[in-house]
Amino acid sequence: MTKHALAIDVGGTKIYNTIVNEKGEIIAEVEKHSTPKTFNEIKALFEEIISKYERQVDVIAFATCGAVNNSNDGILGSTGNIAKGYPSMDFKSLSKKRVFVENDANAAAWAEHIIGASKGMPYSVVLTLGTGVGGGIILDDKLYKGKNGAAGEMHFKMRTDKHRKCTCGSYDCFEAYASGTGLKKTAAEISGDSEITTYDVIENKDRPLMKKILETWQNDILEGIIGLANIFDPDCVVLSGSMAEFVDIEYLEAQANKEIVTTPFKVVKASAGNYSGMIGAALLALGVKESG
Amino acid sequence: MTKHALAIDVGGTKIYNTIVNEKGEIIAEVEKHSTPKTFNEIKALFEEIISKYERQVDVIAFATCGAVNNSNDGILGSTGNIAKGYPSMDFKSLSKKRVFVENDANAAAWAEHIIGASKGMPYSVVLTLGTGVGGGIILDDKLYKGKNGAAGEMHFKMRTDKHRKCTCGSYDCFEAYASGTGLKKTAAEISGDSEITTYDVIENKDRPLMKKILETWQNDILEGIIGLANIFDPDCVVLSGSMAEFVDIEYLEAQANKEIVTTPFKVVKASAGNYSGMIGAALLALGVKESG
Repeated sequence: MTKHALAIDVGGTKIYNTIVNEKGEIIAEVEKHSTPKTFNEIKALFEEIISKYERQVDVIAFATCGAVNNSNDGILGSTGNIAKGYPSMDFKSLSKKRVFVENDANAAAWAEHIIGASKGMPYSVVLTLGTGVGGGIILDDKLYKGKNGAAGEMHFKMRTDKHRKCTCGSYDCFEAYASGTGLKKTAAEISGDSEITTYDVIENKDRPLMKKILETWQNDILEGIIGLANIFDPDCVVLSGSMAEFVDIEYLEAQANKEIVTTPFKVVKASAGNYSGMIGAALLALGVKESG
Repeated sequence: MTKHALAIDVGGTKIYNTIVNEKGEIIAEVEKHSTPKTFNEIKALFEEIISKYERQVDVIAFATCGAVNNSNDGILGSTGNIAKGYPSMDFKSLSKKRVFVENDANAAAWAEHIIGASKGMPYSVVLTLGTGVGGGIILDDKLYKGKNGAAGEMHFKMRTDKHRKCTCGSYDCFEAYASGTGLKKTAAEISGDSEITTYDVIENKDRPLMKKILETWQNDILEGIIGLANIFDPDCVVLSGSMAEFVDIEYLEAQANKEIVTTPFKVVKASAGNYSGMIGAALLALGVKESG
């Protein structure tokens, strides 16, 4: 019989839930909630969602902000913009069914690997370009987590002169340049207008100034991709997230392949859809691996 | 009975050979040769070494410059400063015994993992700081090679404004800053003296100018280590090679751990010795894995 997961995506702003089957198909309505401000309210929301659906599923699969440990049951350290106590959530205690937790970007990377853009490719790096930048690394058809589970943080440096503060507390990380927030900062630096928005840039992208801003932002993404390709010798780099719409994927692939010292690789857009975090968490929780 | 490998280290300047046992011990004299200028002369030297020693050993283990394929029998693409035809060497045909080939930095990383500084640690990144920078990545107690074997190239960017040309043809790679050559270039930039040598800097390291140069160079190494720790969540980063003598390892470990978003890790100096390339290639060829 086909197995199912109750998938719950936990972000700093929104929490989503739905039911996903072993094929990675969403087979119920996707419900959307604003993320509550306190630990207790978040826990109460989880309990409400779980009590409503747990009888229909085999496992509860969380895709969450924050780094998740290697036993897939807890969060390591702190997470950005969500209630301070959230990382201490005891996920296992939320249901009598099995509960599985994975980082959202890692889960999204797994969805791309099983049903999306990196299907059939054993080695891939997924970059989720949104307000921030998430990363998920698949090596030898397995999700790479490192010694404690925190791997895949795209906080490598783009310059070394402490020019731009990063959300992580350090300076000049890839996230601080390649993200939507990074584009806004690059736009402010180039235009001299501190009020400029990413919307202004994208809506007016044929104007020379905006074109220059977008090219600078895209070049930073290119430089990051080159570094990752030289480190991993991957089959592909997948660009995911809302900001991935605004890059020239063919250019990135062609240019990166000219500059690497490793072997030719692809740069592709994500194709597992908006709910790839929930789909990937469900597929991981259900133990679905590459079939080919 | 204890097995042995004839280990041959092939660099652009020197070729070494010796015999290594399963414990990673060098049990014969280390012979040293200048690297011949042509493919045919290099091949003749290999044949001479192999015919002299192959009867005493179980396998021939090469640690070579250049990326080595995943079947460990050939070189991928081109390699820097060695005879142009060298990458097409048919290593298997050199002996009736089994021939095993691995990249020198990968081999050195394996030696550190089995008998050196990263023994007992499943996840490590080895940076070999010499004239250039080599890299070797151990993940889950296995040498990480990527889809074709070329992984571990430490050519990620330190800046994005095409400031300093790298040996790889691109600009501003970690190698172009963290290497001995990088230190010389940093020294020239800071001092304004294009003739300055790394020797000048190191011999006069208590003078404020030289101190500033060394600190700038070391800071670039730090920034690279931070990025790698955020990507891999490793147990440790091992610094190897002649230039590793000139960094403050305790400072690097303390400062990097303050800036990462992943979990605490060590920064340690290599301890497998000058011949870690030959030792690691031998241990890989003999199939020696982590015992604990």
